[in-house]
Amino acid sequence: MMLLGIDPGSRITGYGVIDISDTRPRYVASGCIRISGDDLAQKLAQVYAGVAELIGLYRPQEFAIERVFMAKNPDSALKLGQARGTAIVCAANHGIPVHEYAARQIKQAVTGTGGAEKAQVQHMVTALLTLDASPPEDAADALAIALTHAYARQGLVATSSRRRSSGSAGRNRWRDFRPE
Amino acid sequence: MMLLGIDPGSRITGYGVIDISDTRPRYVASGCIRISGDDLAQKLAQVYAGVAELIGLYRPQEFAIERVFMAKNPDSALKLGQARGTAIVCAANHGIPVHEYAARQIKQAVTGTGGAEKAQVQHMVTALLTLDASPPEDAADALAIALTHAYARQGLVATSSRRRSSGSAGRNRWRDFRPE
Repeated sequence: MMLLGIDPGSRITGYGVIDISDTRPRYVASGCIRISGDDLAQKLAQVYAGVAELIGLYRPQEFAIERVFMAKNPDSALKLGQARGTAIVCAANHGIPVHEYAARQIKQAVTGTGGAEKAQVQHMVTALLTLDASPPEDAADALAIALTHAYARQGLVATSSRRRSSGSAGRNRWRDFRPE
Repeated sequence: MMLLGIDPGSRITGYGVIDISDTRPRYVASGCIRISGDDLAQKLAQVYAGVAELIGLYRPQEFAIERVFMAKNPDSALKLGQARGTAIVCAANHGIPVHEYAARQIKQAVTGTGGAEKAQVQHMVTALLTLDASPPEDAADALAIALTHAYARQGLVATSSRRRSSGSAGRNRWRDFRPE
């Protein structure tokens, strides 16, 4: 059972694929869809084609994306909305259920604190998926979103008991983890 | 030669189809895609399916949409962006060129003044397309976008000479029309 996490952007859309067939989520792939050119329609077509290609390649059964509550400003919100809408409708057009998680939920799920820094998210994604190296930020964010959905499916986003054991590097970080 | 104008929204997406095979644009169809439900992915899928259906039905060769410069607030900008991105990527996925026009350009093109009210746009769309009745606001906006693109293709968005003669009801309104 594959999950696809997407971190959309108007220039770079990060993706992360994890396999949750076993109890412990397993890393499958991650990276970025890089958008080129200045024509909006062509840029959105690249996002759509990129997500469609990932769906074709990894056949994810579920799709997870960050929920946006507070966009920085109207202009960036519009651009983010266009890329985000494109990624979501691509999943919907392929019949894949879409799940949304707030940034705080994602940080809480992978680091144990809703106020975690980007670097902490990268560190914990690396630890939880036992990767040899830290993935780039956009890919790490997309993997964190996919991991959050994996934990939510297991009923672990609101409980901490089973996650304490995942990843030795993160063990100390879990100590203060409590359900929100 | 058919043009499809789209006025996207998270609840209602207006559309207008005009035929520009002759010198004078001819009304073909207009209306609204009404979006139901609360699930974002399903709502965007309705926008995409609606636009795809219009494309299948009317086979437009070109697509026009309002360019958004100043969104009201980040939250509405995100929602508009999602619907807008979905409509644009649907056109792009069907290989239809997408043209964007600012609100001021659209108002200028159909009423002769960039600061026109909604009612004036509705009135002029009715006159220019010699309709029996005024279309509802979302449909009128979409027809205005399509008309703007029709005039732009004819090189008339920046010149007024030929448009003076279109629609008796609007004749007086053109008197003060000057290229911006």
